[in-house]
Amino acid sequence: MSDFLQLKIYFSGELVPLSEARVSIFDHALMLGDMVFEMTRSFNHQPFMLDSHLDRLHASLRLLEIDCRLTPPQMKQATLDTIEANLPLFEEGLDYWIRHDVSRGPVSLLHHLLPKPLRPTVIISVLPVIGRITSVADAYENGVHVVIPSQRAIPSRYLDPKAKTRSRQHYQMANLQAARIEERSWPVLLDEHGYLAEGTSYNVFLVKDGTLYTPEPHNILRGISRTYVMEMAARLALPVYETKLEPYDFLMADEAFLTASSYTILPVVQFEGRPVGDGKVGPVYQRLLQTWGEQVGVDIADQAKKIRAKYGE
Amino acid sequence: MSDFLQLKIYFSGELVPLSEARVSIFDHALMLGDMVFEMTRSFNHQPFMLDSHLDRLHASLRLLEIDCRLTPPQMKQATLDTIEANLPLFEEGLDYWIRHDVSRGPVSLLHHLLPKPLRPTVIISVLPVIGRITSVADAYENGVHVVIPSQRAIPSRYLDPKAKTRSRQHYQMANLQAARIEERSWPVLLDEHGYLAEGTSYNVFLVKDGTLYTPEPHNILRGISRTYVMEMAARLALPVYETKLEPYDFLMADEAFLTASSYTILPVVQFEGRPVGDGKVGPVYQRLLQTWGEQVGVDIADQAKKIRAKYGE
Amino acid sequence: MSDFLQLKIYFSGELVPLSEARVSIFDHALMLGDMVFEMTRSFNHQPFMLDSHLDRLHASLRLLEIDCRLTPPQMKQATLDTIEANLPLFEEGLDYWIRHDVSRGPVSLLHHLLPKPLRPTVIISVLPVIGRITSVADAYENGVHVVIPSQRAIPSRYLDPKAKTRSRQHYQMANLQAARIEERSWPVLLDEHGYLAEGTSYNVFLVKDGTLYTPEPHNILRGISRTYVMEMAARLALPVYETKLEPYDFLMADEAFLTASSYTILPVVQFEGRPVGDGKVGPVYQRLLQTWGEQVGVDIADQAKKIRAKYGE
Amino acid sequence: MSDFLQLKIYFSGELVPLSEARVSIFDHALMLGDMVFEMTRSFNHQPFMLDSHLDRLHASLRLLEIDCRLTPPQMKQATLDTIEANLPLFEEGLDYWIRHDVSRGPVSLLHHLLPKPLRPTVIISVLPVIGRITSVADAYENGVHVVIPSQRAIPSRYLDPKAKTRSRQHYQMANLQAARIEERSWPVLLDEHGYLAEGTSYNVFLVKDGTLYTPEPHNILRGISRTYVMEMAARLALPVYETKLEPYDFLMADEAFLTASSYTILPVVQFEGRPVGDGKVGPVYQRLLQTWGEQVGVDIADQAKKIRAKYGE
Amino acid sequence: MSDFLQLKIYFSGELVPLSEARVSIFDHALMLGDMVFEMTRSFNHQPFMLDSHLDRLHASLRLLEIDCRLTPPQMKQATLDTIEANLPLFEEGLDYWIRHDVSRGPVSLLHHLLPKPLRPTVIISVLPVIGRITSVADAYENGVHVVIPSQRAIPSRYLDPKAKTRSRQHYQMANLQAARIEERSWPVLLDEHGYLAEGTSYNVFLVKDGTLYTPEPHNILRGISRTYVMEMAARLALPVYETKLEPYDFLMADEAFLTASSYTILPVVQFEGRPVGDGKVGPVYQRLLQTWGEQVGVDIADQAKKIRAKYGE
Amino acid sequence: MSDFLQLKIYFSGELVPLSEARVSIFDHALMLGDMVFEMTRSFNHQPFMLDSHLDRLHASLRLLEIDCRLTPPQMKQATLDTIEANLPLFEEGLDYWIRHDVSRGPVSLLHHLLPKPLRPTVIISVLPVIGRITSVADAYENGVHVVIPSQRAIPSRYLDPKAKTRSRQHYQMANLQAARIEERSWPVLLDEHGYLAEGTSYNVFLVKDGTLYTPEPHNILRGISRTYVMEMAARLALPVYETKLEPYDFLMADEAFLTASSYTILPVVQFEGRPVGDGKVGPVYQRLLQTWGEQVGVDIADQAKKIRAKYGE
Repeated sequence: MSDFLQLKIYFSGELVPLSEARVSIFDHALMLGDMVFEMTRSFNHQPFMLDSHLDRLHASLRLLEIDCRLTPPQMKQATLDTIEANLPLFEEGLDYWIRHDVSRGPVSLLHHLLPKPLRPTVIISVLPVIGRITSVADAYENGVHVVIPSQRAIPSRYLDPKAKTRSRQHYQMANLQAARIEERSWPVLLDEHGYLAEGTSYNVFLVKDGTLYTPEPHNILRGISRTYVMEMAARLALPVYETKLEPYDFLMADEAFLTASSYTILPVVQFEGRPVGDGKVGPVYQRLLQTWGEQVGVDIADQAKKIRAKYGE
Repeated sequence: MSDFLQLKIYFSGELVPLSEARVSIFDHALMLGDMVFEMTRSFNHQPFMLDSHLDRLHASLRLLEIDCRLTPPQMKQATLDTIEANLPLFEEGLDYWIRHDVSRGPVSLLHHLLPKPLRPTVIISVLPVIGRITSVADAYENGVHVVIPSQRAIPSRYLDPKAKTRSRQHYQMANLQAARIEERSWPVLLDEHGYLAEGTSYNVFLVKDGTLYTPEPHNILRGISRTYVMEMAARLALPVYETKLEPYDFLMADEAFLTASSYTILPVVQFEGRPVGDGKVGPVYQRLLQTWGEQVGVDIADQAKKIRAKYGE
Repeated sequence: MSDFLQLKIYFSGELVPLSEARVSIFDHALMLGDMVFEMTRSFNHQPFMLDSHLDRLHASLRLLEIDCRLTPPQMKQATLDTIEANLPLFEEGLDYWIRHDVSRGPVSLLHHLLPKPLRPTVIISVLPVIGRITSVADAYENGVHVVIPSQRAIPSRYLDPKAKTRSRQHYQMANLQAARIEERSWPVLLDEHGYLAEGTSYNVFLVKDGTLYTPEPHNILRGISRTYVMEMAARLALPVYETKLEPYDFLMADEAFLTASSYTILPVVQFEGRPVGDGKVGPVYQRLLQTWGEQVGVDIADQAKKIRAKYGE
Repeated sequence: MSDFLQLKIYFSGELVPLSEARVSIFDHALMLGDMVFEMTRSFNHQPFMLDSHLDRLHASLRLLEIDCRLTPPQMKQATLDTIEANLPLFEEGLDYWIRHDVSRGPVSLLHHLLPKPLRPTVIISVLPVIGRITSVADAYENGVHVVIPSQRAIPSRYLDPKAKTRSRQHYQMANLQAARIEERSWPVLLDEHGYLAEGTSYNVFLVKDGTLYTPEPHNILRGISRTYVMEMAARLALPVYETKLEPYDFLMADEAFLTASSYTILPVVQFEGRPVGDGKVGPVYQRLLQTWGEQVGVDIADQAKKIRAKYGE
Repeated sequence: MSDFLQLKIYFSGELVPLSEARVSIFDHALMLGDMVFEMTRSFNHQPFMLDSHLDRLHASLRLLEIDCRLTPPQMKQATLDTIEANLPLFEEGLDYWIRHDVSRGPVSLLHHLLPKPLRPTVIISVLPVIGRITSVADAYENGVHVVIPSQRAIPSRYLDPKAKTRSRQHYQMANLQAARIEERSWPVLLDEHGYLAEGTSYNVFLVKDGTLYTPEPHNILRGISRTYVMEMAARLALPVYETKLEPYDFLMADEAFLTASSYTILPVVQFEGRPVGDGKVGPVYQRLLQTWGEQVGVDIADQAKKIRAKYGE
Repeated sequence: MSDFLQLKIYFSGELVPLSEARVSIFDHALMLGDMVFEMTRSFNHQPFMLDSHLDRLHASLRLLEIDCRLTPPQMKQATLDTIEANLPLFEEGLDYWIRHDVSRGPVSLLHHLLPKPLRPTVIISVLPVIGRITSVADAYENGVHVVIPSQRAIPSRYLDPKAKTRSRQHYQMANLQAARIEERSWPVLLDEHGYLAEGTSYNVFLVKDGTLYTPEPHNILRGISRTYVMEMAARLALPVYETKLEPYDFLMADEAFLTASSYTILPVVQFEGRPVGDGKVGPVYQRLLQTWGEQVGVDIADQAKKIRAKYGE
């Protein structure tokens, strides 16, 4: 594992060792959770949907009025350079993810404690997909359990989840509550009106009579995997609707699954202690996972198991 | 100014140079804004209300289920040791503040990228009060202007402001909006029902007919300076009520002021473009500021000017 | 009328006399309103949409986590058997309705007061359609008046109306309020946002420029007659939308009608004291009623009058 | 146990055997959860706070506009008569509770299925306190665990909990959710704003620095035991406040306890997986329980154990 | 009656005939309901609480940012002058009320249609109290009926009722709804949470066990008569609480009454179709009315009857 | 300019001079903001969409239960007559707008102060379009700036904006707040959930990837220009969606524009201090403006400049 400690991180213009990938306690990121980020993964060492992720990164920056001082092309080039610098550390079969972290930098009021000049913090990391992927290696076949924590999604008018920011203490609370309900369960938060919103870093889909349903794109992060699933479904002639969904609908669904950039899609086989559909991984899910894998040339579930076998959990 | 770069920071058990006061990008603090903090200041180099701040720190940790692995006495001792280690850097007349930052440490899912063992992040910094204090040096006499931004306080059921956490992107949004309304104005957020909640790191009081009013202690941080003002008022035989306050009440008030641990109390002379009372700093404010100063043996407004004169703005 | 007292009720596995169709005061049904039910009616002695009703029954049971210990086929068989046992009591022209009532049975904490074994309560009743039908016999021609009571629909996140449960005290309150506004008026409840939700056991449709509109399927019971009307409309090339509707829309509609399993559809000719459209029963309504009647082989309005003539009101 | 099957129940004017304490499926109670009730217990065979319970019963009837056709004195007399009729079945040491259930009777629209005359349903039962009491016999010493379910309290504007009605499906949902979080845990529901409301048939108190706090009397049943505790506390010179309480306050409390007519008061030693105070039964609780016991001449915790020993669980 | 047509109205600096008391259709008052007002009445030709009314007038102007170009002393003088100019038209026993109407004047964007110079509109009228008073002449003895309309009070964060403005279409809707529920009934609006707010130009009090309760001063006009009643009660040693009140509390009250500047206080004998207390005018009300009358030297109920006798209804 | 003072206003059946276009202070319009209105403009002296405006006028009257005593044809005829009477005052190139104002007339309770008979107030004015048009003459090319004020749109359940009434104090508050944020900026109000609602007398559209988006027709006035734009877009094969839009969507839009009957459409180039799209007037806007101009035979932007040149600002 020690090889990964050789990773080089892009840090505000320089490549630094992994151990230097640290942010000043005077940075807006730390003082106010005032940082945006993105997670992009590769398949076969090719970044997947990188442009979409970078677009969303710039959208988040725009909402938060952060001027990162890099144009979109510069940000992309820095990303590609960072990948190139680290690629030798990734053997075949082990994909990476690219993590962008951007804040407006240190709080200027504290300038007397800070080396000059003050500038935005831009971090680009290229990291092995190990942690998240190995932890779900069995889930592609066995499915996961979803629970509803007491914590509700923060309405977007208070803190807009469409900007992917680091102010996400409430996700941590939801994770802790879910663990108390059932170990290793996955929380899906309700919004203020009791509609399904999103997981703590994943979107949710229901399947009923061959049609896909997913929450409206307001109180959620508009996930890029979510969009990708919607586009795949269109190509597969599966109707998809963005609509209001309730726990009742979850209980009546034939299938359900979660989407995220890291593990792509995971089947849900239990909801609030009751089986989803017949409690088994369903055919629509399997078709989507297979199609995704074909698109990117990777057997996604198989890769996860191989990574786990090699890198332990 | 360079002297301050000699400061030593307590970092998870060790004293490190100021430049090393940096948090891993894999820390919960950064990834989820999942960190609690406190700011305590000194008067004449004596920590003020330190026990209250530490009590609240432990309360925040309890709400967030963070086990920092220090008992309260240990945390206090570490604090006192850190003060002692840094005190020589503070000349007379320059007070410090003590900043505590605590997270549950790096995200365990990423353990393969992290040096072992994983442990909570506990940072104690002793820093000059310069930034915040010099910026308000004139405000003790001239007062500040308050505006209502479009951003509303997040209701406590979504993200409890009584725990002083680093997930405060919404405060940053409020600050940006306030700056657009009027440069150097101070935002006070309304709660979901339109009642005054709090500033972006300060509490608010109104004075009407010799009585003090401050928002109920639910959708706000229960400020230690807020409590201190309430106790001072009691000693001065000024009635104080925690109640629901609206913009209407602000407009009808005789006086208003803001409280925070750094600058203690600041008078508000304008609200939403209209004068508060007669638009001048009022007598109740002055009496409270003077009393506070007497209690701690510092002429608070005077000290601010002197610090600004010496350390620039 | 006394003949009906000969009716046999299916009660947790046995057929009992009507007079024995009583539920223990220790049953969840009574102690907590914790019972689900369905009402299915016949046309020409044929159960109408029975499968849909049984599906919804099982959906309600699933939401409430009640295990009734009958599989869906067993429930259906028990239903058909109960119909058969009672059919001789129904002369031609008099249809019946089938009522299912299911609870999880007596509260186990009180087991010492209860005969053993404890088991779920499953009641299937086959009853004459007389009461509800005779009371509306004139309404097919004269229409009904709708009013908005002060009582609001309970949002589904508190008590989901999609499960047809017996906790419906609020419907009773709405009925009492409506009677105070105008005798024999029909309440339609607004939801928390002021949108039309549903009646106290019926759904509502508006007609404007040949298009049908009905509230979104969230804060309402998803009525089987409501669905049937939507399907009929599709066959008749009438567009139908599920959307947010407000009192304003009701006042601007050309026509309006209510749907329920018992009386099918009833025209609304007055809303909040003002005529709906021209205040007369409209052509879209008439076309729908006629189509429904043709589908089931019954002149629905005529049957109601005949039943009233024969069995009094 | 079989002796209790000899109990006589007052049923709309007559005393009937326990096995006949059943309500018609055509009764408002069953069809609409439209029934009010009360639970009063005895100590040493003396009804406790009976007048308060009857007052609240009549208040509930008034809110629901149910005319039970008994004046308050008649209701009380019927109650006393029913007690007298059943008292011989209760040996010393075994207290009873008196349960009142009142509905407006069968739905008049269904009169053709009903024996005449239609009249309100009034049931008075005198039952052994066994179930609830034996199940908590250990809790007086060991305390109970409280959890926050996802289900929220229904705001009183939708369904007023101050009227003790049988439409309480949502309490059942809360109980089921609590059992999934932790077996035998006790749910306390949050209201729409995230404030503590009540349990599923009990009120909640917090103790901090010798002062009692309990939720405001709006979105809750105004429990008679709750009132009794407030009065006891006044006599013991313990301040009591009805105020808004949040999970944060629960976590910061020194002690907490639940109140209900059956078991009086039970200590809470765990909240959301964390200890309350030091995780042990606290002195304020013990003082209140002892005082209560002295007032009624019963060692409450001891009685519970004896009943359990004798009547099993 | 024609004498009253001789009344002189103060209109932006001049006294004009009653028939000229008209506002341009280009005035903010008309175009945006953007006008504040006050109603002050006399007793024995002495203005009652005039200073309080003028204070509130200036408070409303301040909230709306209207500069009326009169200082408070000038406004008072203009008021007294207008009274003096009209007093000869009022015979003994006939009191007047003083009505202030102030807007920021015509919309400047339309200046080309307007005579110059543009200036605020300030109207002071001194009018006989006939209309409102004669219509309630019997109510002092017989009481009035209160109903809850479907219209809810607008929360103060949207439109602050503490400023007495002319944007009150919603009061008109409430009045129309109340008339449909019961002719001549008086609506009391609920706020968004179901708490009693206020009538359409009156405040409400409940009496229970000798204590007065009235809604909190947030979503209501802070009536000057309301304040006066609270002060009278204090002098009479009747406790008064501003608190949250619900329909349940109204139904449980011993007495209730309404307050307004015109008729002072009116007893409520029916609420939502049910008697308040015993359905008769209660002793607390009578004591308050009598005290008020003594304070101002007028038998208030008697005066109303005499005015009605003389001036018809 | 003095020529316009010759205008004749239709006032409840008569033509009166402009200076007599004044409303009694006893009128519902003034006392309760209880008046509905419409603004229709001409192009080349032809009324534009007059029938739609009159339809909406009657819809507003219906919602408010105002009987204006004119049938729709009579109202139209009166309108045409008033145009005809005033047309000679409008030279070529200067269009007019027609303003309808209707209230239920004076408050009957005050009948003793009023000339008889009481009747509804119906005012029809034909006025030059100068004010609004000249003020925006540059905006067709330079665009306008939009800001979000703290004031929120009143939800339709409290005060329905679909009826165009004169109770719009809250719009005035929004205008004042916007002016404080940025002089000459245009406020767009958020609704209670943070979705874009409408301006203070205009609707809003966003354009993204060639598709138009506009808020759902619930918490807004359903603008006739809004509808006209939607129909134009359909003819131009531009997709249009009514949907929920948030500040995030505004920031991500390529273009945005405002619609109103007076100036038709105005481009938005800045939102909350940040450029919309590239900060320039966009092609979709230009195409719509041009199409509109072609439809009505007027170069809309050019006309505005000419009017300003001639009639000053």
